[in-house]
Order: sequence, then structure tokens, then C-alpha cells
Amino acid sequence: MNKTKVIFDTDPGVDDAMALLFLHHAPEIELVGITTTLGNGTIETTTRNALYLAERFGIDVPVAQGPATPLVGPAGEPPHYVHGHNALGDIPLPDTIAKTVDPRPAHRLIIDLVRESPGEIAIVAVGRMTNLALALREDPEIAGLVKQVVIMGGAFGFHGNHGNVTPAAEANIIGDPLAADEVTGGSWPITMVGLDVTQRTQLTTEYLEALARDGGEAGQFIWDITRFYVAFHHAAGVPNMFVHDSSAVAYLIDPTLFTTRSGAIRVITEGMAIGQTIQKPDGYAFPPGDWDNRPSHKICTEVDAERFKALYRQTILRGA
Amino acid sequence: MNKTKVIFDTDPGVDDAMALLFLHHAPEIELVGITTTLGNGTIETTTRNALYLAERFGIDVPVAQGPATPLVGPAGEPPHYVHGHNALGDIPLPDTIAKTVDPRPAHRLIIDLVRESPGEIAIVAVGRMTNLALALREDPEIAGLVKQVVIMGGAFGFHGNHGNVTPAAEANIIGDPLAADEVTGGSWPITMVGLDVTQRTQLTTEYLEALARDGGEAGQFIWDITRFYVAFHHAAGVPNMFVHDSSAVAYLIDPTLFTTRSGAIRVITEGMAIGQTIQKPDGYAFPPGDWDNRPSHKICTEVDAERFKALYRQTILRGA
Repeated sequence: MNKTKVIFDTDPGVDDAMALLFLHHAPEIELVGITTTLGNGTIETTTRNALYLAERFGIDVPVAQGPATPLVGPAGEPPHYVHGHNALGDIPLPDTIAKTVDPRPAHRLIIDLVRESPGEIAIVAVGRMTNLALALREDPEIAGLVKQVVIMGGAFGFHGNHGNVTPAAEANIIGDPLAADEVTGGSWPITMVGLDVTQRTQLTTEYLEALARDGGEAGQFIWDITRFYVAFHHAAGVPNMFVHDSSAVAYLIDPTLFTTRSGAIRVITEGMAIGQTIQKPDGYAFPPGDWDNRPSHKICTEVDAERFKALYRQTILRGA
Repeated sequence: MNKTKVIFDTDPGVDDAMALLFLHHAPEIELVGITTTLGNGTIETTTRNALYLAERFGIDVPVAQGPATPLVGPAGEPPHYVHGHNALGDIPLPDTIAKTVDPRPAHRLIIDLVRESPGEIAIVAVGRMTNLALALREDPEIAGLVKQVVIMGGAFGFHGNHGNVTPAAEANIIGDPLAADEVTGGSWPITMVGLDVTQRTQLTTEYLEALARDGGEAGQFIWDITRFYVAFHHAAGVPNMFVHDSSAVAYLIDPTLFTTRSGAIRVITEGMAIGQTIQKPDGYAFPPGDWDNRPSHKICTEVDAERFKALYRQTILRGA
């Protein structure tokens, strides 16, 4: 099988870790690099977690660290109430990790890997868009050399949902709105899976129990790290656990799980709607405006949650 | 039957005229005043049209004129390509109209009528929110004296749709975003029917032909004024005609036609998303932010289009 080479841009993070294990065990995927972003923890925390996950699960790829702040403004406080203080659901972590970080900044690793395998690299980005924006600024030509970019981020109002940090904005995008607007202005082929769609897939306790039972070390690990995350969902009145980041991986592996819509995307970078993602659907006529002369990208509008959950389980079980 | 007293705040406009005839012939409704806003034409055009419609169809209520500009900024160019140069689909209009405009400014007529019948008045607002905002500024107590406010305006992303003037904004709201933010900050009981829902109801040529045949003078008039409007829809690739303003009337007559969602509403007043309406759904927890300490209002999320069309036809036919 001709595997797709993947750079995973991530801020682990409970559901980031679940997405990494999904990528790691997917027979269609060859992970070639991990780049870290600020988000579910500080950049030090997410990079430590990425190194830990790579070492623990034998993922032998470079891990490169992104910047400590977004393009503009301060880092902000990590959402400890969602992912725990160590951003992996407060499971015990070793004091030292043998695997070391790549000396290159994250965006440089992205550029190098894309240049090494032109036309072959897919980027799965499930954190803030900072690294992708920096890569595009430093080497705009990579936009034409990347096979595909799949982003978990934003929300487009399908199913009535626009955000989780504000009523207008999702965390990854509001975490660096300028970066997201620059990235979606790029002519690489992007598909965004927004919060409105990722929330359509929920994992029940029964599903996670079965994964722990049947899924070997990865299955047990997913059970362990999700205890805190599930408790957060319960406290917020959500009976089950959303599957945000793995939705982007699922799109890469099997796009037929999703329905999509094409159009230019803008990200609001100021005011009350800061962090909102808005698509001008192709084929709709508007007076001249801010969406003109931007490339069309796909957004996901719906997912076949049952098939997605079956694919996730089947993939994790490959490692058992 | 205990009729609901209605003030119709409107910028006629083709679909405004259709909504006015809907109100006029509805046995549940007693029209008590018409106030005009800038929008589908200049304020002079929409006021002239309101006077013409009232005179032609024997609607014996005061017509008061609103201001020529929104709260902030210029009036902008009317959308002649949607409603025609005379904003009634360019049907021939008489040179003179006997009925004269009320001497009070529109917002003052609203205040006076509400004060005359406390707790009994419903306002159906299908133009820009300027008059309602001015009324609320001058006499904030009316918020507690109005029975109900039903607004055709905005778009909340249901069914993937956020706007018609920009990908973020609907015409009535972007026409005076500050007014809309002030009005939705008021503690009167508001229901908004946004573009995302009004576009769910489309009238076919067959429907309009039957209305012309069976609907007496009103039915023929609706046929005449909609020729230009339908041509605009066809040019935009829409096979039928949307029913925007009458959707607000339909909600007032029979709210069971609609499903709704409650929550605080903000209107974006600057930047790329200017004119966007965003609701924080009740029951969703967010960090402190711009939606706090605002009253909950209803937005419509879906409509039973078939029952709505049947109600419209049945009501117009009462005048035949």
C-alpha cells in the first residue's frame, strides 16, 4: 500500500493523544514528524507530552517545538479544567524522557519535510495554526508542495454550533486567529473539520471500556487519559465524550465519512467575533468584499459517526 | 376573538408588501400602526410605498416615517436589483397619494401606541432596527410594556447560511448593526426569524399563479409586484422566491410553525463580520464574555414550510 506521509501538528492534549494513536496504528499512514503548538498546555507541556507519547508508543519521528505564544498577543492560560494540569488527564508521567526534541523550530521541520517529499505530505493540524502560518510565511512555495492539509478547528454553525471558547469561536482558532486567517488564505488544499461536526461524534463509556479491554496498551492508555476529560464533559452536561482531533485523522483516512462544502474562508481577528471562521460558499453571489480573491477550501458539514467510531476502534485494535 | 394589536415596522419592499397584506387579512391581527425604515428603498420611497399600500388596501392606520440614515454612518445604496427602483417591483404607481404621513417620527409613534395599550402591542419588524432602537433609547420602559417583538433579520447559521449581503451578514441587520445590538440587548420578548430559516420557504410560480387567480385584488397585486423579485431570484440561481418578511408574521400568528432556541444575542458592529448575529444558546457554559448579562431571546431554527404556505394562501384568500 502506498502510505500517506503525515506531519502531525498538535498540542497534546487528551484527544490529541488519541488522534496520534489513531495515526500511528492506521495502515494507510506513515507518520514522518510531529510539531507542537501551544494550546491544551503551555508549549513546554505539549512538547513534553509529544516526546512522551512518541517514546512510549515507539513512534520514531522527529518532534519539533513551536513558539510559546501565538503570532500576536500572549499565550493565555491553558484549559486545565479540560485536559488536566499535565494536559494528559493528570495520569502519572515519568520525570525524565529519553527522546529529545528536534533542534529545528516546528515550522522549519514542516518546511524541510515538505521539501524532502514534494507532493507527498499531508499535514494534520489539530492545535493552533501558528506553526503552519510561520511555515507559509517563511516558505510560501510549500503551499504548492503539500498534498493536503486537514485542520481540526473553527466552527461553521452547522447543527447550530459556532464555538466553545465564546459563542463565536472554537479554541484552536481563537488561540491564534491571525495565523488561522493566513493559513486559510494559503493555496494549499485545506479541509477543516470544525467543532460543529466534531461534536457530532461522541464516545460512550461503554465504547471506551471496550477499547480498554480489547485495544492493548493503546486502548488501556486511552481509557486512562480520558477519565479527567470525560469528567469535564459530564460537568458540562454532555453525557459522552466528543472526538475532536481524531475527526481530522478520520477525514484523511476515509473522506467518505464526511460531507463537505467548498468556499473561501475568513477568520475574524478582532472584536466580539474574534476567532470565528466564516465560509463564503462557492456559487453564492455577494457584493465585493473580504472573501474575494481567497482560495476555496472544504469544510466538513456532517459525519457518519457510527462508521467513524468503528474505524477508530478497528484501527486502535490493530496495535493490540 | 381577542385580536393582537400589531405595529408593522417595515421598508416596503416587495416581500414587505406581501407581509403587510398577510397582517391585514389575518383574523387574529389588528394593525394599529405602520412605521417605515430605510432599506429596500430610501426612506422617502419606503414611506411613499407604505402610504400607497395603506390607501390602496384600506388599511386605516397611521404611517410614520423613520430616519433617512442608520444610527451610525450613511444610508447606502438601496438594492434596486432586488426590489426594483420603486421598491415595489417597478409596477406603475400613482403620482399622488391622498393618505398623508403621521407628523410624529416613527419611533415616537411606536412609543405612543405602546403606552396607549400597555401589554397588548406586538411589533413585527422586518426592516432595519433603527426605529426600535430609537424608541428604546427615548423610552426604555416600553421594553416592559410590549407584548412581543418579532424580527425578520440576521442569520444564525442553521442550514449553513449566515448572510446575503456578506457571508456573515443579512441585509436588515448589516443595515444598522448598532441598532440591532441595542434592540437585542433590550428586555422585551424578542423572536428573530433569520435568513437561514426564511430561505427554507420558497414560493413557486405555480403557487403565485394560484394566488393571483384565487386571491382577489391582493392576490393579483402580489403576482404583479413579485415579477421583478422572482426574476432576481432566478438570476441568482434560486428557482423559486424566498418568503422573508412574511415569516415573521407567520410566527406571530402561529408560532407552532417554527422551532426555536433561546439565548443571548449579540450583533457584530465592526470588522469583517459586521452585521452578523450570534446567539449564545442557553445552557451552554462559556468563560465570561460579551454575551453575559444580556436577556435571552428566541431565534427560529426551522419552519414547517408547507403549513406556512397554506396559512399564507388561506389568509390572503380571505380578502378575495
